[in-house]
Amino acid sequence: MPPPRRRPGGRTARIRTQVLDAVRAELGEHGYDGLTMEAVAARAGVHRATVYRRWEDVGGLLADVLEAAGDDAWRPPDTGSLRADLAALNQEIQDSLTAHPPIVAALIAASFRSEKAERAQRRLWEDRYAHCESIVDRAVRRGELPPRTDARRLLITATAPLYHQLVLLRTPTDPALPAQAADTAALAASAGAFAEPPPADDT
Amino acid sequence: MPPPRRRPGGRTARIRTQVLDAVRAELGEHGYDGLTMEAVAARAGVHRATVYRRWEDVGGLLADVLEAAGDDAWRPPDTGSLRADLAALNQEIQDSLTAHPPIVAALIAASFRSEKAERAQRRLWEDRYAHCESIVDRAVRRGELPPRTDARRLLITATAPLYHQLVLLRTPTDPALPAQAADTAALAASAGAFAEPPPADDT
Repeated sequence: MPPPRRRPGGRTARIRTQVLDAVRAELGEHGYDGLTMEAVAARAGVHRATVYRRWEDVGGLLADVLEAAGDDAWRPPDTGSLRADLAALNQEIQDSLTAHPPIVAALIAASFRSEKAERAQRRLWEDRYAHCESIVDRAVRRGELPPRTDARRLLITATAPLYHQLVLLRTPTDPALPAQAADTAALAASAGAFAEPPPADDT
Repeated sequence: MPPPRRRPGGRTARIRTQVLDAVRAELGEHGYDGLTMEAVAARAGVHRATVYRRWEDVGGLLADVLEAAGDDAWRPPDTGSLRADLAALNQEIQDSLTAHPPIVAALIAASFRSEKAERAQRRLWEDRYAHCESIVDRAVRRGELPPRTDARRLLITATAPLYHQLVLLRTPTDPALPAQAADTAALAASAGAFAEPPPADDT
């Protein structure tokens, strides 16, 4: 369960900020294996008992870092064209997956260790992909894509090569990859790869 | 380092088979967290000292399971068309990622815990993708694709959605996904998404 968020801006919110900053810093420096409730409490300057009471365990801390990432005002790129929107999105993904310290990569790795982190990571991705459907909606309104385009499949096709190469295959960063994967998805979309069948006729 | 493979079919090979079968069984039943050198030795009916001497630790066992998977006679599908080859390949990937017991999924998860498993997992993928380039070569020879087609990018585009959905996003298995992702990649390929620039003119 996420920590209480009554009194935003008050002591509760301030402690949350301090603790989550400390989790990110510890995770970036030591990875999941070096992340302990004690180190987080010490780094945040918060009583250990408070950290245990509000976050329970390391999984709870990681889940709340992911929850906080979903709270932010992130919006998908809006550049005026489908290809450029997808390329900008992919560049953001590549930058986050290859950042130093590697916090996003460490959170994904942690999702294979902690069920709480896994659920929170899935919620964050679901939230981000749902937001990104506006990229496809705008392309449809501009006439770049047919009206019945499966937005989610298009977005997965555009972004999956980044995750596959950087998280699973662990290939070196390729500066051309974000735009190439975006172009491939846009080309496939123009060729009708994500066209949905027309609705069944009711008459 | 992989265990010695002198005397294939002899005692060394037999012990390896017993031990790796035991690793797969323990991994399928208990996952990485339940995998111990002791349990593997007991299940294999092999002295603990032998297991420690030849495989060192759990990471060494996992790496050798992956190494053994690369030794097999696996060949990519050869159905007579690019789309059907890619769809059959994706079906194999989906089946392996959703199998019960979840040995392949557990090995991927373990690659986030053990550097030895990570290196072996990367080598296995590299080996499989290298083999799969024959799918693209055959499509080029049949005239389905232009001669200068980047085989690896095409293969990553075709297969990445499977890994992204099943390993990272952890969406429920979608029976349509293998063929859809294959069709998307084939469509993009026909539209020139993976065409390489012509070689520089030497004259």
